[in-house]
Amino acid sequence: MSKKLPKRSEDYSAWYNETVKRAGLAENSPVRGCMVIKPYGFAIWEKMQRALDDMFKATGHENAYFPLFVPKSFLEKEEEHAEGFAKECAVVTHYRLKADPDGQGLIVDPEAKLEEELIIRPTSETVIWNSYKNWIQSWRDLPVLINQWANVVRWEMRTRLFLRTAEFLWQEGHTAHATEQEAIEETEQMLGVYADFVENWMAVPVIQGLKSPAERFAGAVETYCIEALMQDGKALQAGTSHFLGQNFAKSFDVQFVNRENELTYPWATSWGVSTRMMGALVMAHSDDSGLVLPPKLAPIQVVVVPIYRQPEDLAKINEKVQPIVENLRSLGVSVKIDDDDKYKPGYKFAEYELKGVPIRLGIGMRDLENGTIEIARRDNLTKETLPIEGIEDKIVKLLDEIQDAIYNKALTFREDNTFVVDTWDEFKDQIEKGGFVMAHWDGSAETEDKIKKETKATIRCIPLNSMEMAGECVYSGNESAKRVVFARAY
Amino acid sequence: MSKKLPKRSEDYSAWYNETVKRAGLAENSPVRGCMVIKPYGFAIWEKMQRALDDMFKATGHENAYFPLFVPKSFLEKEEEHAEGFAKECAVVTHYRLKADPDGQGLIVDPEAKLEEELIIRPTSETVIWNSYKNWIQSWRDLPVLINQWANVVRWEMRTRLFLRTAEFLWQEGHTAHATEQEAIEETEQMLGVYADFVENWMAVPVIQGLKSPAERFAGAVETYCIEALMQDGKALQAGTSHFLGQNFAKSFDVQFVNRENELTYPWATSWGVSTRMMGALVMAHSDDSGLVLPPKLAPIQVVVVPIYRQPEDLAKINEKVQPIVENLRSLGVSVKIDDDDKYKPGYKFAEYELKGVPIRLGIGMRDLENGTIEIARRDNLTKETLPIEGIEDKIVKLLDEIQDAIYNKALTFREDNTFVVDTWDEFKDQIEKGGFVMAHWDGSAETEDKIKKETKATIRCIPLNSMEMAGECVYSGNESAKRVVFARAY
Repeated sequence: MSKKLPKRSEDYSAWYNETVKRAGLAENSPVRGCMVIKPYGFAIWEKMQRALDDMFKATGHENAYFPLFVPKSFLEKEEEHAEGFAKECAVVTHYRLKADPDGQGLIVDPEAKLEEELIIRPTSETVIWNSYKNWIQSWRDLPVLINQWANVVRWEMRTRLFLRTAEFLWQEGHTAHATEQEAIEETEQMLGVYADFVENWMAVPVIQGLKSPAERFAGAVETYCIEALMQDGKALQAGTSHFLGQNFAKSFDVQFVNRENELTYPWATSWGVSTRMMGALVMAHSDDSGLVLPPKLAPIQVVVVPIYRQPEDLAKINEKVQPIVENLRSLGVSVKIDDDDKYKPGYKFAEYELKGVPIRLGIGMRDLENGTIEIARRDNLTKETLPIEGIEDKIVKLLDEIQDAIYNKALTFREDNTFVVDTWDEFKDQIEKGGFVMAHWDGSAETEDKIKKETKATIRCIPLNSMEMAGECVYSGNESAKRVVFARAY
Repeated sequence: MSKKLPKRSEDYSAWYNETVKRAGLAENSPVRGCMVIKPYGFAIWEKMQRALDDMFKATGHENAYFPLFVPKSFLEKEEEHAEGFAKECAVVTHYRLKADPDGQGLIVDPEAKLEEELIIRPTSETVIWNSYKNWIQSWRDLPVLINQWANVVRWEMRTRLFLRTAEFLWQEGHTAHATEQEAIEETEQMLGVYADFVENWMAVPVIQGLKSPAERFAGAVETYCIEALMQDGKALQAGTSHFLGQNFAKSFDVQFVNRENELTYPWATSWGVSTRMMGALVMAHSDDSGLVLPPKLAPIQVVVVPIYRQPEDLAKINEKVQPIVENLRSLGVSVKIDDDDKYKPGYKFAEYELKGVPIRLGIGMRDLENGTIEIARRDNLTKETLPIEGIEDKIVKLLDEIQDAIYNKALTFREDNTFVVDTWDEFKDQIEKGGFVMAHWDGSAETEDKIKKETKATIRCIPLNSMEMAGECVYSGNESAKRVVFARAY
């Protein structure tokens, strides 16, 4: 922690990469497009997983695990799905290496060629619906409400830590229902779970909406999404929930006998969020000093840095601090005391700023005399000196306050950067400047495509909770039922 | 749940497979050698994960995540390691599919051939030590204490649910230390953690020991293991902890400046347990009625089955049962009430026996009148009718009792099936009958190999906690320092 980070205002992209690396979240690996998630980053991911997993279970879902490999023939069964993923598939063709007869090292054994190639799952609809064929025979077997935590691979050409990597970690829910209505309700429920999580845990406000047909998941009838705005004015899709209709049931010939004793196809949903959320977390809140973590996802919520010269002073400080730390832990607060003497307090302060620890407590000999402690907030970088007596309650309240403050700051930012636009010139101008641009669109894929080509803006979503209000398409002048959200996006 | 399971005494292997499938733990997938872990099985695995993860963190380890792909050149760097894994590698050679120009469907795009093939990790020493090169420069960076929960692939020709599958789930710890002594201590500490978990959570007694050189992990200086005995008299290796010396540090050129300001190589360990433990859990305890789960790992510890004819009777029963269920839950017991009216109580009883739920409570109208409840133990299939008053405390105690009883039963079984043998004829005879056979071995790989060829028995381990007591090798008659454990094994 010697060099400063790049400034967001000067080079947002470099700032992001450096923040991710130097805060110890992740780094690039020599394996093309794959990242290493480092312990501090993984600790945040674990907190995300735990919170989401509890929410999935509270809504009746169970975890399971399906194979990493998708036989090529499975992928081919749902045509749109196949088309959507074929171009980014890692393909296993052989199952053995052997010593190179012409030299040193290993070569692929040509005799160990697979009869059918295996794809590393880019998503698991196919392999899971193939299993559901055996699981679903009667209405009594429905609904099937399953989630999987897994790694997936999509061979991306341009990758970025967390935001776009060849391999990433995610969860994918795959449910089957007796009726269309129930499946749609599930799709919407899980979108709501994601919105709840992203807003209340990650402290990132989102717009809930539908994707345009062109942006739908390959094989879906309808894709719901949550869209967040990053500090550089670009949008980021934080999660998707798909209503799959009967597409996969038909492709994999899954039928069941319904209550009316008729043989019919179940209705499906799938939904996922990934380590991409880690990127959103960094880009939504962090500043030029490093990470800013919402307390609910911070691996360390409070760090205590004793300030001392002599070992006997440290002992005195520890004596004062230890009961406070224990009280905080019993209140469910994660606390670290950093009395490592390899580094000076100033160095440590910068380090915990970089790592986004929400509250830092500093205590020295003068504080001991005065019965005080210094409390520093990471989110707004303010400090104050308070009586040490009863500090635990203050900290617990402050953690909630910080969580809210971070959310409100992001919300204000989004509101300040959401623009209603009615002319094509305004549109182009605003897209160039960034932010969410609310504009009328005529509903045609052609217009959508032209707008994208001319401005690099995509329709982030057709908001769910906005009124129908007719107008004219900002590009074609044709009729439009309501405004949609445009932005450039990650 | 109509058909009975095969009997262990008649066809142990069929009994195992049917138990795993019908209890809803796992099933084979159409993807060669890969299994689907079903929700009930996965719930047990999650309990295992949570307990182990807590133990890893309590011993100072952090989780991280490294790439799925190992470049072929990484595998080649440590010669023994490469040799050990080359024959079972799933190899990614291409990164794209395309529409078949000669017909329907997809083919591998020959233009999307990777310059260097990628192996799906069979284990991650290589990819992790490649990262450690950047993480370790000074003694201040040590120790590095990292664990990863991940899927790995080893292309096995003959697979069996949980016991041997091409893809399996596991954790792999990878640590780096400044001194040899510290690394050996870590290796032994983690073996102890595994033994603690397997004995105290899985209720399976284990022998801790060292592998013979021939059975060592490819690339290790020393492999420690825990060995358990299954009900059919075969051994199962439940976990391994490897002291890797400086082999991987040297192969990946990882050096650090020690406290004496010298550039030197760190010392390494790696250690892992996998979904194979699920197989051990089933085979150690279960019986001809299905699973027997130790309470600490049972997803449902107590099931309540109301016995009633009329809906109003159910309401009365529920009124009585609900506060008990809430009390139990507040005591940390996981309870399910099964008042599903699709099935009869007799069917449900058999189903929960099959699923190994440790305690079943049955309550009918007569019980309501008498103030009683029927309590059935899964482990010994006994039932008794007890006053319902204060039943919660009884249940909490009984769960502990059952945990102990299951362990003690397995321990007695192991003791009854551990044989000390001194002649070659006795040896062959006993190996044929099964069990752990304690015999002298001259320490040579040649003898070990001949014994294996003649009897299919392997040296499971050289026990850590047994006295040196000289004798003569059961095969060669040569000198031997102590007895080792032989068995046929999974």
